[in-house]
Amino acid sequence: MNVPVLPKTVKAKDFSGGPETVTTGPVTGSRKVYASVAGRDDIRVPYREIALTDPNEAPVRIYDPSGPYTETDARIDLSAGLPGVREPWIAARGYAAVEPRAVKPEDNGFAGDKLVAACPAERVIRKAAPGQKVTQYEFARAGIITEEMIYVAHRENACREAVLERAEAALADGESFGASVPAFITPEFVRDEVARGRAIIPANINHTELEPMAIGRNFLVKINANIGNSAVTSSAAEEVEKLVWSIRWGADTVMDLSTGRNIHNIRSWIIRNSPVPIGTVPIYQALEKVGGDPLKLDWEVFKDTLIEQAEQGVDYFTIHAGVRLAHVPLTARRVTGIVSRGGSIMARWCLAGHRESFLYERFDEICDIMRAYDVSFSLGDGLRPGSIADANDAAQFAELETLGELTKIAWDKGCQTMIEGPGHVPMHKVKVNMEKQLRECGEAPFYTLGPLTTDVAPGYDHITSGIGAAMIGWFGCAMLCYVTPKEHLGLPDRDDVKTGVITYKIAAHAADLAKGHPAAQLRDDALSRARFDFRWEDQFNLSLDPDTARSYHDETLPKDAHKVAHFCSMCGPKFCSMKITQDLRAEVLAMEQAGQVIGAAPALSPAEAEAGMREKSREFLAEGGKLYVDAAE
Amino acid sequence: MNVPVLPKTVKAKDFSGGPETVTTGPVTGSRKVYASVAGRDDIRVPYREIALTDPNEAPVRIYDPSGPYTETDARIDLSAGLPGVREPWIAARGYAAVEPRAVKPEDNGFAGDKLVAACPAERVIRKAAPGQKVTQYEFARAGIITEEMIYVAHRENACREAVLERAEAALADGESFGASVPAFITPEFVRDEVARGRAIIPANINHTELEPMAIGRNFLVKINANIGNSAVTSSAAEEVEKLVWSIRWGADTVMDLSTGRNIHNIRSWIIRNSPVPIGTVPIYQALEKVGGDPLKLDWEVFKDTLIEQAEQGVDYFTIHAGVRLAHVPLTARRVTGIVSRGGSIMARWCLAGHRESFLYERFDEICDIMRAYDVSFSLGDGLRPGSIADANDAAQFAELETLGELTKIAWDKGCQTMIEGPGHVPMHKVKVNMEKQLRECGEAPFYTLGPLTTDVAPGYDHITSGIGAAMIGWFGCAMLCYVTPKEHLGLPDRDDVKTGVITYKIAAHAADLAKGHPAAQLRDDALSRARFDFRWEDQFNLSLDPDTARSYHDETLPKDAHKVAHFCSMCGPKFCSMKITQDLRAEVLAMEQAGQVIGAAPALSPAEAEAGMREKSREFLAEGGKLYVDAAE
Repeated sequence: MNVPVLPKTVKAKDFSGGPETVTTGPVTGSRKVYASVAGRDDIRVPYREIALTDPNEAPVRIYDPSGPYTETDARIDLSAGLPGVREPWIAARGYAAVEPRAVKPEDNGFAGDKLVAACPAERVIRKAAPGQKVTQYEFARAGIITEEMIYVAHRENACREAVLERAEAALADGESFGASVPAFITPEFVRDEVARGRAIIPANINHTELEPMAIGRNFLVKINANIGNSAVTSSAAEEVEKLVWSIRWGADTVMDLSTGRNIHNIRSWIIRNSPVPIGTVPIYQALEKVGGDPLKLDWEVFKDTLIEQAEQGVDYFTIHAGVRLAHVPLTARRVTGIVSRGGSIMARWCLAGHRESFLYERFDEICDIMRAYDVSFSLGDGLRPGSIADANDAAQFAELETLGELTKIAWDKGCQTMIEGPGHVPMHKVKVNMEKQLRECGEAPFYTLGPLTTDVAPGYDHITSGIGAAMIGWFGCAMLCYVTPKEHLGLPDRDDVKTGVITYKIAAHAADLAKGHPAAQLRDDALSRARFDFRWEDQFNLSLDPDTARSYHDETLPKDAHKVAHFCSMCGPKFCSMKITQDLRAEVLAMEQAGQVIGAAPALSPAEAEAGMREKSREFLAEGGKLYVDAAE
Repeated sequence: MNVPVLPKTVKAKDFSGGPETVTTGPVTGSRKVYASVAGRDDIRVPYREIALTDPNEAPVRIYDPSGPYTETDARIDLSAGLPGVREPWIAARGYAAVEPRAVKPEDNGFAGDKLVAACPAERVIRKAAPGQKVTQYEFARAGIITEEMIYVAHRENACREAVLERAEAALADGESFGASVPAFITPEFVRDEVARGRAIIPANINHTELEPMAIGRNFLVKINANIGNSAVTSSAAEEVEKLVWSIRWGADTVMDLSTGRNIHNIRSWIIRNSPVPIGTVPIYQALEKVGGDPLKLDWEVFKDTLIEQAEQGVDYFTIHAGVRLAHVPLTARRVTGIVSRGGSIMARWCLAGHRESFLYERFDEICDIMRAYDVSFSLGDGLRPGSIADANDAAQFAELETLGELTKIAWDKGCQTMIEGPGHVPMHKVKVNMEKQLRECGEAPFYTLGPLTTDVAPGYDHITSGIGAAMIGWFGCAMLCYVTPKEHLGLPDRDDVKTGVITYKIAAHAADLAKGHPAAQLRDDALSRARFDFRWEDQFNLSLDPDTARSYHDETLPKDAHKVAHFCSMCGPKFCSMKITQDLRAEVLAMEQAGQVIGAAPALSPAEAEAGMREKSREFLAEGGKLYVDAAE
């Protein structure tokens, strides 16, 4: 997986923090709004609102993972960390404050605070006692709706209220392949999905700054971006900027894949300043601690790393417990062997001593540690295929079956669990991956890397993988791990990260549309109406990347007057089909009003088409009217 | 559709031509090779051959539409045009030379030769007499195999010989959805596909410079790029460079969508210098001739334009004959109305006079004109959806049904025919487009624009559409019309054209893999082996865009020594999974050789896996051995 580096243009060398060190302010054309659930002022759900120039067009509210950084007057103090939106909820649950594990020299690669000091933000470190309910899964199974579940429910309803009130979007007519995406998300629905293991809310009790989100196939398809310091040099603010930049464009979770020195301290900056779940691969740090030699790994150093990171507030851990000794020979004749770093480390460890993986053998203990902080599992696909030739082979599926076995154990232990998936898979082999994962892992959320649908395009693997990601998202994958253009070639820079995130937002949104998400099409429709009406500013602002859309347009037609021009540079004023067809529409409607018959009449009148939606809207409003009130500023 | 403009960096103002005005020379890491069919020295089929650094790896030969421009010592004289590879074949068929229609002032927008003079290359203009067989369809129906069919057969077999001889690629295990892609393409197979109307070989008898190619779902999936002069200014060499640049990266056909002045003269330069089929939309020029007012269009000016362009050698015409008067009201309540330029022009014409389209009413006559030169039909989708909201609606499908009706007429008239398709279509509505097209149009080749799977990403519509293109290519679409990042926003530049072409090569190749094309995976496998072996140069050279792959790698590891380094900048030397797994492989194989059992054995030994392929290989070699001999230099 790619690990981005910071561009040279951003000032971020001073890790003492301050608003000038990371990108702040709203996305062009948007403003941050919060809505509180009636009666719960402490649950303030963020949205990004796009106002439109046509007074007949309501503003469009969209899901927004970007955190306080995109507020108009964002006041960010990296040293203090983000506000603890979850602090009162967690505090009320009565977990004991614990003395955190002392930082050891090896946690920072024996660099001490020389390169990067720890984030000075102070937090109470908590841990649940045995038997004390702590994970969202345990609460859900007990029938308890947590604040996180309420938050997620309302967050997922962005656009849905508009659809129900205004009957604006087309009826969702997707093919969901067995998913059950409801017309409206209630907190009880969220609880039920979490209790079934079909969704997770990655939310370490020590990550109080988190704005909760859900990963599950009956929610919006999510995307993950990877960050991490390079081995050579990286400052804390640089790493936070990578996070902020990723979520600005829509990353729902971020994995910190750092492998260098000072990663303990850098992680403290990332988590204290992250509104999204942070995932890690603890085996990377464990390996650093033993000098990089897989054979020196053991349970003690791994366990110690789990506790270290759980106390810091990491929300999910990739655990490659499915790489068993017996699976290793299945990879020996592959074209590209084992391409997962964690997978290859564990395979090496198993084979060298001809012994079973300690991750597999100690899985119960791993569960107990992770449960105490509500760290979710991301069961790693250490044997994912690294080439088209290796897709869906015996090694890959043997591991997946093991992950299914482990999922049940994790649930028994009270842990939230998702499953990682491939990799390189040609289009015709994508669907069986999804089907087998659902079957083997009891519908636990699937989280895939792409998949890349061909090997022949290094430099464009955001696209080879975006194709596979859109498809598997449609089939039921809950989260898509991005791939940048630099995959297989080098370290992604700022532009690559943005390209990767936007590509995956496309894949996720295309998947939501195809699944029949009831509100997904609202944004497409608003943008298409803007396009047809030549409201160029609205078209830019509704797009996934307003800045790029505007700059492309302005390359040929830079003047302000062109922003309202009824043509563009592609066809020029004379040949614009949209202009012609607008005139045409007026004529047809006038002729029809005059009673003139022009060939066959349309099969379904707009009134008929809207009838179904209006009925639904009435039902909803009858059941209690407006769900949200604007949050206090 | 997008119309690219030339970058400022290319010297191309001097339309007198010469090698310095267009991009020449091999793609990095490749060389052009020709192979002749045994006994037919006049049929020299071009390939691009990629030599690899590992002596155990055979060079990889790939399909190559780039023409003589990518020869090592390409000698290009734009004024003379390309060599007439088809001239002796056409000459032998005995068509009468005709006095070409005199150039009229309106052909060049009343600009004369002021801006761009006509290409001075002289050619005999031919036309078939009534009853004289001329189209590939007519020959195929009569059981006659043409030189074009032989050429196409051998061209399509790039990689197949290697697969059969070396049993190198994995067994094709795709899902073809009813396509029948054979293990080996014979000229008779090509004839049969053309005779069934399932494939076309767009090849105007007046385009003798053409290197013949086939479009059909049992052949490699093809891609089209659009070029065209902007209304403001454009020189001939500029336009030729757009063509050369597009085919360099893999465009199989090119549409000239020019709408400005001097388009007759510019077209002469394009066709005389094009090794790929050139398509046009004649209604654009017809509209220019009547001053841009759709209501002034009539059959006479349209017919005159058809003859003008057919004599010049255009290989296929987009004809929007499916836009009938009765369809117009079906579009009036669409979110984005009619987005096809030709469609909106014809709808305007029909509605204004409340009359049936002259393209529909005169369809027989259009067939007669096109047949006489073997201009193929590309039946235009004038009512394609321009937004997700309008996908698969009554207007779109009513037109498709009309196109099915017209396909049968065109075949009766002896014409080759393909069908254009959408547009904006969410993923779950893509497949029904393909199925309905096959059903309505008797399996005539489908040629779609994307489709774009969401409306929300202007600036990234190569990706929104690349997803849909890959899927519909898999389902059976024969040719994919590219979309560039500038779609909906402005004129694509050189980089945009390349990005569009590469994205569509990815989509087409992903589709070939998923369909189970028997040789498609050879390139993926060769690249993946190179990746696993850290043969960086081979990995770059096998990729769709060697220059970009190399430059991305070199950003972080620029030294020559890094090209053989057993790691990259993503993980560094210590954490490289490939390095670990290489060591692992050696160990496993050694242990197995020593008789040690490591868990379960692999389900299928490599010997077993190869058995099927070897059997096929034996059959082929038994039937006559090597099909190709190297062509005389």
